[in-house]
Amino acid sequence: MENRLFFTRPDKLKEDKKKLIAKINKEKEEIGYYSLPQQNIDNILEFSKKFDKGIENIVVLGIGGSSLGSKAIYEFLKPMKELNRKLFFFESTDPLNIANLLKQLDMAKTHFLIISKSGGTVETISIFKYIFASNQNRDSYTFVTDMDSNLDKFAKDLGSSIFYLPSNVGGRFSVLSVVGLLPLALCGVDIKALLKGADEVSESFFDDGKFKNMLLDKALFYAKNHTQYNINCIFAYSETLEYFTQWYVQLWGESLGKKQRHSSFNVGLTPIGLIGPKDQHSFLQLIMEGTRDKSVTFIKLKEFKHELYVPNITLKHLESLDILNGIAFHDLITMQCDSVIEALKDEKDVPLDEIILPCVDANSIGALMYYYELLTSLVGELIDVNTYNQPGVEAGKIILKEKLQSKTLSHFY
Amino acid sequence: MENRLFFTRPDKLKEDKKKLIAKINKEKEEIGYYSLPQQNIDNILEFSKKFDKGIENIVVLGIGGSSLGSKAIYEFLKPMKELNRKLFFFESTDPLNIANLLKQLDMAKTHFLIISKSGGTVETISIFKYIFASNQNRDSYTFVTDMDSNLDKFAKDLGSSIFYLPSNVGGRFSVLSVVGLLPLALCGVDIKALLKGADEVSESFFDDGKFKNMLLDKALFYAKNHTQYNINCIFAYSETLEYFTQWYVQLWGESLGKKQRHSSFNVGLTPIGLIGPKDQHSFLQLIMEGTRDKSVTFIKLKEFKHELYVPNITLKHLESLDILNGIAFHDLITMQCDSVIEALKDEKDVPLDEIILPCVDANSIGALMYYYELLTSLVGELIDVNTYNQPGVEAGKIILKEKLQSKTLSHFY
Repeated sequence: MENRLFFTRPDKLKEDKKKLIAKINKEKEEIGYYSLPQQNIDNILEFSKKFDKGIENIVVLGIGGSSLGSKAIYEFLKPMKELNRKLFFFESTDPLNIANLLKQLDMAKTHFLIISKSGGTVETISIFKYIFASNQNRDSYTFVTDMDSNLDKFAKDLGSSIFYLPSNVGGRFSVLSVVGLLPLALCGVDIKALLKGADEVSESFFDDGKFKNMLLDKALFYAKNHTQYNINCIFAYSETLEYFTQWYVQLWGESLGKKQRHSSFNVGLTPIGLIGPKDQHSFLQLIMEGTRDKSVTFIKLKEFKHELYVPNITLKHLESLDILNGIAFHDLITMQCDSVIEALKDEKDVPLDEIILPCVDANSIGALMYYYELLTSLVGELIDVNTYNQPGVEAGKIILKEKLQSKTLSHFY
Repeated sequence: MENRLFFTRPDKLKEDKKKLIAKINKEKEEIGYYSLPQQNIDNILEFSKKFDKGIENIVVLGIGGSSLGSKAIYEFLKPMKELNRKLFFFESTDPLNIANLLKQLDMAKTHFLIISKSGGTVETISIFKYIFASNQNRDSYTFVTDMDSNLDKFAKDLGSSIFYLPSNVGGRFSVLSVVGLLPLALCGVDIKALLKGADEVSESFFDDGKFKNMLLDKALFYAKNHTQYNINCIFAYSETLEYFTQWYVQLWGESLGKKQRHSSFNVGLTPIGLIGPKDQHSFLQLIMEGTRDKSVTFIKLKEFKHELYVPNITLKHLESLDILNGIAFHDLITMQCDSVIEALKDEKDVPLDEIILPCVDANSIGALMYYYELLTSLVGELIDVNTYNQPGVEAGKIILKEKLQSKTLSHFY
């Protein structure tokens, strides 16, 4: 993985960088995600090796941090190789969606992973109840939860397999823990390579490698300019990265949208995920000519490993498009990305950088996700928020509980 | 369809409203989309009635305004009823994506709609060439383009069916023209009901109905506060509206992100599409506690027409969640939406409104899309931009052409 910054890197910030590194090193002792690339995964590998060969579908019952990470990796790798099993996600209480997903599943060949830190997630438990009502077989379920949570106790009574979340790893930073690794391993993803990719970025950052200054400079720029550039776009030139951008949206938005620790002012940076070239025909106009409130990070693939060419044919009246003839689609999409970057460079006041992934494999996505986790931690520290909590979502949950207790619906009925 | 505004409606703006209405009425004489709900669609109905019954797949080769609208409607209706045919979209030059889509299609049962105003769209024509190289059968293709465009000439020589775009209808405002109606009619969507829904909003707006003041107030609020609230979120509580939000993102972003007509300053409003309850676990924290730079429009469904209940069972250790027992998922998702709205109302400085759709049908989505087209026109007029062009995307296209001519790739190879 490479990263090139096209904006002017902050100058004379040696002291700021030193302080920031010191803080992150201290945080590292406490916050669990930092050391996930070095964890022992023998139990997960063992479990998936012995797993029932008759199971064709793995269904994750989980939402937000319990699903977005594994979905991002699964959808990234899926077009490249035939995976062992199909992975599904029940993430919504939308009845149309639930009914539609259930229709696709042969229950005898389906295994459910119930992933909930506390076991109290309304969406996850309501759907679990629905499924459990017609299938109480312990072997159909595996649980991923906190040790001694109520869900842990339930799972123990039921006699199903249980995996525990590591301590001090929040949902949106949990992709490289059992939360992501278990479903992915069951589908045949090389989770060792995934962690190795993350470990390379970790080592580079913490041992003075190339990513150290890169990440510090990028974080300092975003934090210093967060009131002007309050929107941070990722523009990924591959459809395979669509769910990665959704994972990024949660990571960035939920970590950085907070009341400041020392002032209680509302701050935040708004993440936007875009896919090229599709969104050149949608969002690009706004980036090129709209308000100067956006930074853009382009992500491109060095190798697509898929040989597909525009054929050498001339269409009458459309001869002007013969310039496309003989070109590999792979080169075309890269040229499209480069053309947009060049056009945007001329605008001067849109901060740009590009990330280049070597190819579509587990190593690349592991590196990319860990890179974004580190960037989030750095920016969170700099804009003075608690990166790891989400107090803002509690108010709605309390109101929902009241509504459920009184079964009061709004008045439009 | 209903719409309720929870922010303080702009006061004493009678004069502004009068002026705005006058301008829109003038624009209506020139800009084609306004009168699409009243168009004659006999030719489309006739064509789809006589269409080859052996065709099971309709593939749209088109991008941006040529695909997002029909995709939004197709994906909205799909979970509710069995449609006649499946609709696919080739929107990317990503080779992984193209190869993957082609694998799914039985070519003998597939018909292609090539949709391009000018016929010069790089993505559309490069993929068309790829498919055309192995199938030159005129009956496999139907073309939708401008009369006398090069693509029209090519299609005439080939002898395929051709439909023409109405004049003065830009891509992102074309969903209710043949661009959207043709693929949808071929899949069995009730396009008459679609237009009827749009016509109801049109009539209400232009004939002093309930939507007139609603839309004027909302547009005036967004325009007056566009520097503070530079981000406009749609939070839709149904998975079926996911592609509607993508259509909205193009409509809003590409129409409003412009240099101002009278100053050439960069202005714009940034659209964000969210799906509930999923994004309560992702983006909600940022709305609740982040910078006050966002407005939020909630969209909910009155009827899901799908009876699915949380069963009346108690799970040991999880008794606290028995409050979910017996509730319809339909009511649960509505309660989740209402709870978030209530929690946000307490924050005071986040402008909110809600739109209620009667149910998942063609009428509802037609109304909703026309409502958003009108809102976009109103805000564009107020922030002094040309709502209907997209000059910002040209620079990248010119650079791409140069690259294609010299076949120069960037230097990372």
